[in-house]
Amino acid sequence: THTMTEAEILAFAREFDPQPFHLDHAAARDSPLEGLAASGWHTAAVSMRLQVDGELLKGGIVGAGGEIGWPAPTRPGDVLHVETEVLEVRPSRSRPDIGIVTVFAETKTADGTIVQTFRCALVVPRRQ
Amino acid sequence: THTMTEAEILAFAREFDPQPFHLDHAAARDSPLEGLAASGWHTAAVSMRLQVDGELLKGGIVGAGGEIGWPAPTRPGDVLHVETEVLEVRPSRSRPDIGIVTVFAETKTADGTIVQTFRCALVVPRRQ
Repeated sequence: THTMTEAEILAFAREFDPQPFHLDHAAARDSPLEGLAASGWHTAAVSMRLQVDGELLKGGIVGAGGEIGWPAPTRPGDVLHVETEVLEVRPSRSRPDIGIVTVFAETKTADGTIVQTFRCALVVPRRQ
Repeated sequence: THTMTEAEILAFAREFDPQPFHLDHAAARDSPLEGLAASGWHTAAVSMRLQVDGELLKGGIVGAGGEIGWPAPTRPGDVLHVETEVLEVRPSRSRPDIGIVTVFAETKTADGTIVQTFRCALVVPRRQ
């Protein structure tokens, strides 16, 4: 798990997403996020770190892309974890030496609120 | 534009995506990325910053989610910019006070290599 501290949320926002609702409580209250919330990219980056630490794939996690969603904001103090399901494993159509692993990862708070969904195609080496 | 320095690439990777191909030249050479490359989430975060600085939307950029792709790696020294096209503007189906703006953003290097694509649904307030 990873606890999203307010200090981390502010530091990430200052560098990558300096919008009022990621930086200031008062401005955030009147925003569509209805309170201070992490940048979605911060939630994404922390979710990646949790998956790397969890050794999701031994050969490394290289994403080609996928569908990302942020169904709820990540708030200061949220304790995040990621649940990952493997949906499909298949050879690449264009490159015989690699395979494509499709995974669905949900990032959740301790109370089960889903703050991120990511359906992603990962590129992995194939046994020759 | 934003220049992706090697120091930034390493710092982001150490915090959020500590995999060898984002941290070490020798390890990266023999990886699927064929050389040191930024985490895709770093490219995403920098792309966000460029769009915030460019004031893409005056009311703020709040993404509900979308399809992200990384067709080529971001390398140290790459000078990135983002080109954004508005695909659709429509009222929300569930909430009369908000609208959904669908945008397609391409993050490109100076030589035109596309390092990220992002088709994203943004949540915006509607005029009442």
